[in-house]
Amino acid sequence: MKRSSRRSYVLRPRWRVLRSRDVILGPGKADLLQAIGRSGSLRLAARSLGMSYMRAWKLVQMLNRGFRERLVLTHRGGAAHGAARLTPTGRAVLDLYREMEKKSLSATAPSWRKLQRLLG
Amino acid sequence: MKRSSRRSYVLRPRWRVLRSRDVILGPGKADLLQAIGRSGSLRLAARSLGMSYMRAWKLVQMLNRGFRERLVLTHRGGAAHGAARLTPTGRAVLDLYREMEKKSLSATAPSWRKLQRLLG
Repeated sequence: MKRSSRRSYVLRPRWRVLRSRDVILGPGKADLLQAIGRSGSLRLAARSLGMSYMRAWKLVQMLNRGFRERLVLTHRGGAAHGAARLTPTGRAVLDLYREMEKKSLSATAPSWRKLQRLLG
Repeated sequence: MKRSSRRSYVLRPRWRVLRSRDVILGPGKADLLQAIGRSGSLRLAARSLGMSYMRAWKLVQMLNRGFRERLVLTHRGGAAHGAARLTPTGRAVLDLYREMEKKSLSATAPSWRKLQRLLG
């Protein structure tokens, strides 16, 4: 019983890269990069995350402005209208973000086990 | 120039302990525990974090319900009205949370250095 109740708790790292009060990169933007990489489309990526196309578009603009090079290439007209893909920099940023999540989860595993013992 | 612009970026871990959609513990509640431990008063703790007394009170109730033992003892009447202090469990939870932040920051330092090179 105790065991199964403990299992219902989840620990989540939500890394944020901040410049003063602006969130340059966080879990939502990382998920958007991943969805774009998977779908090749900003519209499909937005839909899969339950966000509006305009919201996804704005996040992409913020991401592209926040880094030295663009992270996402988008096409707004022609046959490729709506297509979007990650640049090599976009892929590198996403991979580093996921790497930080993974490394931080394993580094905190001992503390997390102790904390779980105190949870209800 | 490049160096100083990179320095303006900050990486923040925002650990969350979740039970389904409820945030049992996160950065705001950890800060509240710390402020209570420092001030010995729920009112002063709330004020130092710019939150209302009622909001702080509700967060304390959630914290106390989320763990096996209470994290915070409060006095609502008498001479000690408004006094609040951390229990040993409350102190342990706060210490483990801060430990997770510290360990995750050092575990992600190499990835963060790489990510900083890509920032604008």
